[in-house]
Amino acid sequence: MISAFLKGPNQEIILQEFNKPVPGKGEAIVQIHYAALNHRDLWTLKGQYRGSSENLILGSDGSGILDSLGETAQTRLEIGQEVIINPSLNWGENENAQGPDFQILGNPDPGTFSQYIKVPMDNIFPLPKGMSLMEGAALPLAGLTAYRALFTRGKLKKGQNLLITGIGGGAAQLGFQMAKAIGARVFISSSKISKITESIQEGAEEGFDYTQSDWVKNAQKSVPEGFDLIMDSASGKGFPDLIDLLKPGGSFVFFGGTAGPWASPIPAKIFWKQINILGTTMGSPKEFQELIQFFEEYSLHPKIDQIFPLSNINQAFRRMESGEQTGKILLKIH
Amino acid sequence: MISAFLKGPNQEIILQEFNKPVPGKGEAIVQIHYAALNHRDLWTLKGQYRGSSENLILGSDGSGILDSLGETAQTRLEIGQEVIINPSLNWGENENAQGPDFQILGNPDPGTFSQYIKVPMDNIFPLPKGMSLMEGAALPLAGLTAYRALFTRGKLKKGQNLLITGIGGGAAQLGFQMAKAIGARVFISSSKISKITESIQEGAEEGFDYTQSDWVKNAQKSVPEGFDLIMDSASGKGFPDLIDLLKPGGSFVFFGGTAGPWASPIPAKIFWKQINILGTTMGSPKEFQELIQFFEEYSLHPKIDQIFPLSNINQAFRRMESGEQTGKILLKIH
Repeated sequence: MISAFLKGPNQEIILQEFNKPVPGKGEAIVQIHYAALNHRDLWTLKGQYRGSSENLILGSDGSGILDSLGETAQTRLEIGQEVIINPSLNWGENENAQGPDFQILGNPDPGTFSQYIKVPMDNIFPLPKGMSLMEGAALPLAGLTAYRALFTRGKLKKGQNLLITGIGGGAAQLGFQMAKAIGARVFISSSKISKITESIQEGAEEGFDYTQSDWVKNAQKSVPEGFDLIMDSASGKGFPDLIDLLKPGGSFVFFGGTAGPWASPIPAKIFWKQINILGTTMGSPKEFQELIQFFEEYSLHPKIDQIFPLSNINQAFRRMESGEQTGKILLKIH
Repeated sequence: MISAFLKGPNQEIILQEFNKPVPGKGEAIVQIHYAALNHRDLWTLKGQYRGSSENLILGSDGSGILDSLGETAQTRLEIGQEVIINPSLNWGENENAQGPDFQILGNPDPGTFSQYIKVPMDNIFPLPKGMSLMEGAALPLAGLTAYRALFTRGKLKKGQNLLITGIGGGAAQLGFQMAKAIGARVFISSSKISKITESIQEGAEEGFDYTQSDWVKNAQKSVPEGFDLIMDSASGKGFPDLIDLLKPGGSFVFFGGTAGPWASPIPAKIFWKQINILGTTMGSPKEFQELIQFFEEYSLHPKIDQIFPLSNINQAFRRMESGEQTGKILLKIH
C-alpha cells in the first residue's frame, strides 16, 4: 500500500510503499477513501508537536470501506460497509478526562494518510446517515473536539450567546453548525473579512475582525449582558479581553494555544464574575457516538475547503499553513 | 452609638458617635456583640479595594441580638433572639453569579464595626445551634466563601484529595473543617511551620511549606495521581505549579489574588488535562442557609484567633497584617 510518510530528520513527506497491515484480535482494517488534515499534523510536520516528529504516517481523520476484521467474538460491523474512524484511542472509563493510555490516531500510531489503516474495532463507526464519505472524513477530530467543548464542557443551551473565535478552523466551523442547530445565537471572530461575511450568510448574528482595536467594544455593544460561552483555540494576549466579554457566571472553553500562553488577566476579574475557564481536548467514545447522532438528527454536513490527491499532500499542508481555508482540507486516497 | 469610622483621606480609623439607625420597611436593626475582620476590610483601610476607601464604617461579619424590626407583613425572627448576618446583600435570583445590585456589607453600606447595624431582614439568620455568639461572628463571610468554593463550585466529594493553599486565612480554615467533615483527604500549604504542624494535628494528611523549592515535588510524591481540587486565594507566580499538581479533569477554585496576577501556564497543560479553573466569590442566600445547616449537622465550630475590644481595632488590623493568625480575628463590641 502507498502511504504519505514523514521521514526524519528533514521533516519531508514522501509517498512510500508499505505492507498492508494485518488485523490482530479486536482490530479492523479500513481502506481509506478520504483523509482530512488537522493542525496537529502540521505541527508534527514542523517539529512543534510533543512526542515524535519523524518516521510517521500522519493523519487522524479518515473515512472509507471496512476491509477486514481480526479475531472477534461478535461485531456490529460488516465487511464492505462505509465507515468513519474515531481518532480517540484508549480514552478510558472516565468521562471527565482521558486515561494514561490515551493517544490520538496518527502519532505515534500510523494514521489515515495511507491506503489502508489498522485501528481498534471499537473506533470504527458506520458513516453517519445522509453523509458522503468525503464529508465523513471531515467530521471526526474537529467535530468531536467541538462537540465536547460546546455541550459536555460548555453546556451550551438554546438562546444563549456564543462567541467562536477564529472561525476558519475545522472545530470552529463544525461548532458553528452545531450551535446554530440547537438555536444558540452565534457570534464569530476572524482576521479575514471574507470569513466574517461568509459566516453571517450562514447565520452568524455578527462577526468581529479581531485585528481591529475596537472589536472588543463592538462586541460589548452587541451583547451588553456578555457572552454565555466563548469557544477559543488561540489563547495568547487576547485572553483578558475575552474574559471581559463574558457575562457573570459565563464560561471560556478552549482546546488550543496557537497564539501562545495567556496574557494574565487580573484575578479579581475572573473570581468576581464567577467565570469558568474550561480546558478540553478530543472526546470520549460516548461523545463520538453522540456527535454522529447529532449530525444525523439535524442533517448537518461538514464543510469542505479543498480536496487534494494524496500525491499533492505537501500542497495541502501549504493550504493549511496559509490560514485561508474555511472548513476541512481533504486528501483523496482511494 | 459608637462605631469604628474610617475617615478620609488619611485612612485613619477612629471611634465616633453616630445616631442609632432606624429600620425601614423590610429592615432590621442588630445590636452587634462580635464582629470579625476580613482582608477586604484591610484592603479598604489601605486604599487597595475597588470603590470607596474613606468615610466608611467597615465590617462584613457580625453576630448579636435582634434589636428591632421595620414594617413587615410577617417575619420568622423574634426581637431579642441571637442572630448572625449574611453579608451578601442583593445577590439576586441567579445561583451562578450575583446580580448587578450585589454588595458586600461594610463597603459602601455601614458595616458591623459598630454597636448597631441596619440590614435587610432577609440577611438575618438565627445563630446556628450549638454555636456561641463569638463563633457566630467568625462564620459568615469566610464560611460562605469556602462553602461555595468547595461544594457548589468545586463539587468536593468524600475521599477526594483536596489541597488548600495558605491555611491561615479564615476561608481556608473553615474550608478545612468542612472538607474534613465530609471525609475528604485534606492537604494544606503554608509559609509557616507552626501552621502546618497545627493543621496536621487537626487532621490534615500532610502540609507543604511553599517557600521551599521542592514543595511541588513533595506534593507530587504524596499524591501521585494529582489533586481532585485545589482551593486558592493567592494566584500569582505559583499558579502554573498548582495546575501541574491537579489530576486530569481536576479543578482549581479560587477567590483571591493576594499574590497578584497569574504567571501564565502553557495552555496545552490546561486543555490536555481537561482542567477546570473556577472563579468564585461570596455566595447566594441559599448557600448561606446550607452553610448554617452544614455547621449544625456536623457540630463544627469556627476557629477564633484573638479577640480585641472595639477600641483596639487598629491593633486587630495589625494582627491581620502580620499574617500570624490562624482563624478569625474578632472585635468585642457589646
